[in-house]
Amino acid sequence: MEVIKEKKKMREWSRAQRKAGESVALVPTMGFLHAGHLSLITEAKQRSTKVVVSIYVNPTQFAPGEDLSTYPRDLEGDLHKLKSLDVDVVFNPYDLYAHNGPEETPDVAKEAGSKKRNLPERWSTAAEQEEKKSQVADLQDSLEENLKPNGGMAVANMHDENKGRHETWIRVERLEKPLCGQNRPIFFRGVVTVVAKLFNIVEPDVAVFGKKDYQQWRVLCRMAQDLDFAVEIIGCPLLREEDGLAMSSRNVRLSDTERQQALSISRSLKEIEALVKMGEVDANLLVKCIIEKITAAGGKVDYAKIVEQDTLREVDKIKVPVVAAVAAHFGSVRLIDNVELQPPS
Amino acid sequence: MEVIKEKKKMREWSRAQRKAGESVALVPTMGFLHAGHLSLITEAKQRSTKVVVSIYVNPTQFAPGEDLSTYPRDLEGDLHKLKSLDVDVVFNPYDLYAHNGPEETPDVAKEAGSKKRNLPERWSTAAEQEEKKSQVADLQDSLEENLKPNGGMAVANMHDENKGRHETWIRVERLEKPLCGQNRPIFFRGVVTVVAKLFNIVEPDVAVFGKKDYQQWRVLCRMAQDLDFAVEIIGCPLLREEDGLAMSSRNVRLSDTERQQALSISRSLKEIEALVKMGEVDANLLVKCIIEKITAAGGKVDYAKIVEQDTLREVDKIKVPVVAAVAAHFGSVRLIDNVELQPPS
Repeated sequence: MEVIKEKKKMREWSRAQRKAGESVALVPTMGFLHAGHLSLITEAKQRSTKVVVSIYVNPTQFAPGEDLSTYPRDLEGDLHKLKSLDVDVVFNPYDLYAHNGPEETPDVAKEAGSKKRNLPERWSTAAEQEEKKSQVADLQDSLEENLKPNGGMAVANMHDENKGRHETWIRVERLEKPLCGQNRPIFFRGVVTVVAKLFNIVEPDVAVFGKKDYQQWRVLCRMAQDLDFAVEIIGCPLLREEDGLAMSSRNVRLSDTERQQALSISRSLKEIEALVKMGEVDANLLVKCIIEKITAAGGKVDYAKIVEQDTLREVDKIKVPVVAAVAAHFGSVRLIDNVELQPPS
Repeated sequence: MEVIKEKKKMREWSRAQRKAGESVALVPTMGFLHAGHLSLITEAKQRSTKVVVSIYVNPTQFAPGEDLSTYPRDLEGDLHKLKSLDVDVVFNPYDLYAHNGPEETPDVAKEAGSKKRNLPERWSTAAEQEEKKSQVADLQDSLEENLKPNGGMAVANMHDENKGRHETWIRVERLEKPLCGQNRPIFFRGVVTVVAKLFNIVEPDVAVFGKKDYQQWRVLCRMAQDLDFAVEIIGCPLLREEDGLAMSSRNVRLSDTERQQALSISRSLKEIEALVKMGEVDANLLVKCIIEKITAAGGKVDYAKIVEQDTLREVDKIKVPVVAAVAAHFGSVRLIDNVELQPPS
């Protein structure tokens, strides 16, 4: 298993694979891998001859005040797990938002007749660290600008210090709005943009995502289709712990009590699933069930909605395939979960 | 010379070329080709072994009320010119904003274990026409939504009729704001998004643009770099008619009188270029010269600015390489022009 740290080397590897007639699947992750991630890798192996797993905690999908700094990390443990799964490459970039290394001038434009630049082959580790720190600080600044009172839409000023800073963002304007988009207005912008970057670097034939992040999967399907990426997007079923809790890297941050309380999410979803099977189609009533159950257990519901699977539009009655999606806080940990529901026959 | 009309066939062609060891250059155009475009193709031929010219009048970069319907078109004439230049492929898509043809369901998401769909190989010409008309109408509706009073930023409602409609947009948030972005708030959004789509379909090694559209070139350089597209972006010098008028497809829409008046743009730029060479560095004074000259000739100045070449930020004094950029209306025709200026030594 190869660990690749640089964008340029990653693309070279992928192109060499394609030239040799291999197909490449990408499984983008933020690391701290659990069985849910591993199931994505199993699916990826079915779909292609080579598998790349990316590990990158993407700062641009966290707003200031969210849990970027406390997001769990364990690169060594992750590499160990991936080795046992016979993954071909782990892509763990340090230069994802950097522009070809620190010696790049901010002026990236090329003119007719100009010569190609010689870029440094590899940064020093110290330079890596410094650059990465300053990238994250820059990006966080830019996010703060974006959170100023205009509904989370993008604002930009032409300040000196912005020169050369990342400023291109992709938005999936309708699907990014509801559910997680309501209280995390820049979340999907960050996710979609970083995934587009990964697609352009890894150039995979297939990319595999978990339906635990149901809205994310839908948003990314739409992005890939609208922008004509030659990447097939696959959604894999959500996996649960034995007690029903949806698998998530964030689960380790729950206290024992919070973890018990958090079971109310999956239990409430299981309950409404049973109700729908018995013929209940009143979405408002079902949503009320979910909220009451989670609140009674001590959780703080961010949202609980029943929406159409493809448009993510709220429904009153369950007449088409829907998904019941929930986000709730237990202590400082925000968890999401969902269940797909068919209308009763 | 091959004319390719479908996204899927275009990508297949490009991939076959790459497999055969060829390199591919893309020259994106809206057709009605003039010597300026042809110089881009000459540059493209220097940079790669195969050249693709795309011809597509992109509806998403025109706001309602702009000149989408009157934008000059002459596909037959264009093909004739391109044949004589020994271009390899003309990509003239009819399905650029369509999702794999009319039989595609709006639900594009793929799940683990699902089978691949069989898509229709080719639409009928009638279906093409209808689909294209409805695509353009849809996109224009979506643009109108975007022009509602919130500064040109994107708004989206989750209406039924939006199901399956293109909704992914790329923005280069700082560079898209000044100059043409001021009065055409969705212009660069449309340009950047369509170019990203073309990059994903054609998968070129190099793409060539004209510096006549100076801001567009800068915006696209930034987009390609920020999103890690493996495409080298080249900017080619602006070409002028014998009398100095910047070459543009829109020039044919000028009356004889307007065309004479429009020479005031290039003359004013030539004049300030001479002033700077003589040591003048006061940007406000130079801008005043431009505006007075064009206004006196009967033009209506949209903007005249002197900005830094890389950041497009306005300057007071010319101390770094700048560009003097102008947009002005003559009758119903909006023209742009620019000149790059070095600070006097």
